[in-house]
Amino acid sequence: MTPPIVAVVGGGQLARMMAPAATELGVILRVLVESPAAAAASPAHETVVGMPSDPDAVRALLAQPRPDVLTWEHEHIPAEVFEAAEAAGVPALPGLGALRFAQDKIDMRRRMDELGLPNPEWAPVATEADVARFLADHGGEAVLKTARGGYDGKGVRVIRDAGEAADWLEAAAAGGPRVLIEAKVPYTRELAAMAARRPSGEVVTWPVVESIQRDGVCSEVIAPAPRLTDVEADEARAVAARVATELGVVGVLAVEMFDTGEHVLINELAMRPHNSGHWTQDGSVTSQFEQHLRAVLDLPLGSTEPLAPVTVMANVLGGAREDLPAALGDITDPGAKIHLYGKDVRAGRKVGHVNVVGADVDDVHRRAVEAAAIVRDGGAA
Amino acid sequence: MTPPIVAVVGGGQLARMMAPAATELGVILRVLVESPAAAAASPAHETVVGMPSDPDAVRALLAQPRPDVLTWEHEHIPAEVFEAAEAAGVPALPGLGALRFAQDKIDMRRRMDELGLPNPEWAPVATEADVARFLADHGGEAVLKTARGGYDGKGVRVIRDAGEAADWLEAAAAGGPRVLIEAKVPYTRELAAMAARRPSGEVVTWPVVESIQRDGVCSEVIAPAPRLTDVEADEARAVAARVATELGVVGVLAVEMFDTGEHVLINELAMRPHNSGHWTQDGSVTSQFEQHLRAVLDLPLGSTEPLAPVTVMANVLGGAREDLPAALGDITDPGAKIHLYGKDVRAGRKVGHVNVVGADVDDVHRRAVEAAAIVRDGGAA
Repeated sequence: MTPPIVAVVGGGQLARMMAPAATELGVILRVLVESPAAAAASPAHETVVGMPSDPDAVRALLAQPRPDVLTWEHEHIPAEVFEAAEAAGVPALPGLGALRFAQDKIDMRRRMDELGLPNPEWAPVATEADVARFLADHGGEAVLKTARGGYDGKGVRVIRDAGEAADWLEAAAAGGPRVLIEAKVPYTRELAAMAARRPSGEVVTWPVVESIQRDGVCSEVIAPAPRLTDVEADEARAVAARVATELGVVGVLAVEMFDTGEHVLINELAMRPHNSGHWTQDGSVTSQFEQHLRAVLDLPLGSTEPLAPVTVMANVLGGAREDLPAALGDITDPGAKIHLYGKDVRAGRKVGHVNVVGADVDDVHRRAVEAAAIVRDGGAA
Repeated sequence: MTPPIVAVVGGGQLARMMAPAATELGVILRVLVESPAAAAASPAHETVVGMPSDPDAVRALLAQPRPDVLTWEHEHIPAEVFEAAEAAGVPALPGLGALRFAQDKIDMRRRMDELGLPNPEWAPVATEADVARFLADHGGEAVLKTARGGYDGKGVRVIRDAGEAADWLEAAAAGGPRVLIEAKVPYTRELAAMAARRPSGEVVTWPVVESIQRDGVCSEVIAPAPRLTDVEADEARAVAARVATELGVVGVLAVEMFDTGEHVLINELAMRPHNSGHWTQDGSVTSQFEQHLRAVLDLPLGSTEPLAPVTVMANVLGGAREDLPAALGDITDPGAKIHLYGKDVRAGRKVGHVNVVGADVDDVHRRAVEAAAIVRDGGAA
């Protein structure tokens, strides 16, 4: 018995939730966690404590017995980690060639344009004059973004005046992340299409989901997205598959999209298991976490068939309840599948989620939101 | 955050498969494993290495931070473990009052008779004359069993002559396990009904399954059992629920049954997650492993609804392939859910299983058996 070893950089909930899948597959999960209290620390089969910027920690992560592959639960991977993996002869997947399109929104937009994939109108901006010109051409309102470092609504700002871009432009001029501007798309909702690809080329996609955002953070996900036409669903899945193939992604890819009512436009890319895919843990034959492990190990990919007509995921953001495990006793809906991340509660921090499967979208949606509210606050929504 | 801690005695696949459920619930699983190479060793969140007969190991299992509950993955628990748990103030569940009916087949048969539950005809036997009398009254053929210590066909023997009982009767007279004899039931197949009960009294049951045995070992499980009448299904579920309640079982209970074509008769009891329930990992809203944790922690029990019209589980018994993880690359059926136990292969040893969900029982059955054969032997069935 020589079980495959998958090394993972990052000790958050995404690495944590790879562990159950690894256990069932008989795969050993070795995780680089920032502290022994990290979300992934206790579920991982082996842990190394340290930061990805610490060469000793990375060396321990890649030590004998050598991992079969090195992967990530986030995109903020120092180049030194890739160099160390290369020196150790361990494939690092998704590779830098793909990952930079998830790290840098300017690189991503350029590449999507080159591929003829559906981008909103956009431009890189270096000066307030650039910003003013774009605003004038796009109705006086647009979305300013830093090319790197943003997540959950950070690094994104809706502006109506070039002066509102001053701080980020100054930071960029001083060597900080570059800045881009995008047309404010008149979208009706946000969708996400998820794909997985293995090195030998096989690509699969899951049903397209609707992602409901509150204050810039994903609140609920409905799978499949209600009232989506077959044309739009096929278009969205084809975009995800094409991005995975053209960029050479290995692992799970999430393509966040705007639904204009007639078409989809690409919003962001993530090359890892993603909040949009948590529903797959209870609602799909293969979860995104198992699929990510299969993909990076170049194993045959699992079925993405749904297990129910509808699955709804509701995030639990930090709220009134601090002792989250106590919520387990308060949720009496027998179909509420609770996933807790073992994190200390801070206001607004993602600390868990709930999945519910069923037949009626409104009923399932209501139940998922109610259960998440009980976890968060200790009372019904 | 004070996560609940569940201590488990036993480092086999049943403890191993509690770990993924514990991770998702935010529960810490502390497992007493017989060796660092045990199936449950790497997936457990905390491990103690030692035997349940070792007081130091049991003390470490019950050490601070104190587990909320102590439970088992098998029934062979020395009384000293219960005493240690009591002294430490840790509930031991299922308790000795219930567990002895899973440990001792004579106690179990007596109790089932007292409750008016459907037993085959049976008798305790101490002498060859007892055996000869029972054989004469039951057509010259019967099933001899040791009251304790049997599993997977061990401790069970079909006999036609009292002399065939001599060795076990001698062992019993010398202080070994007592012996009982049962009428050979003309059954058409074996069924299993699984229930879960929490201390506060709530009981749930899963759909009744058919268990296909080969050489006395469970080979496949079909959920739900095909062609079962509603009357029989209700009867079997009611038996499981009644056994759970009357015996005060806490946790998951499996009642193995004979199907006579018209009625069910109780064969054996197991008070823990059971091979008959592995299908629930991929085919039910709540797996037996999550349910066992919920039950022993006295949490609301999860839904036992199936996720598909049919689920088939096929065991992988040790065969030609020694490097089981290599099987992950050979199984190209995207719906085959593979569960490996991280064990060294020995002929006939349970080393993994495969679940397949779908709509057509014959198709799903064939696919599960084929995938299990590929894991076992490295080739199609």
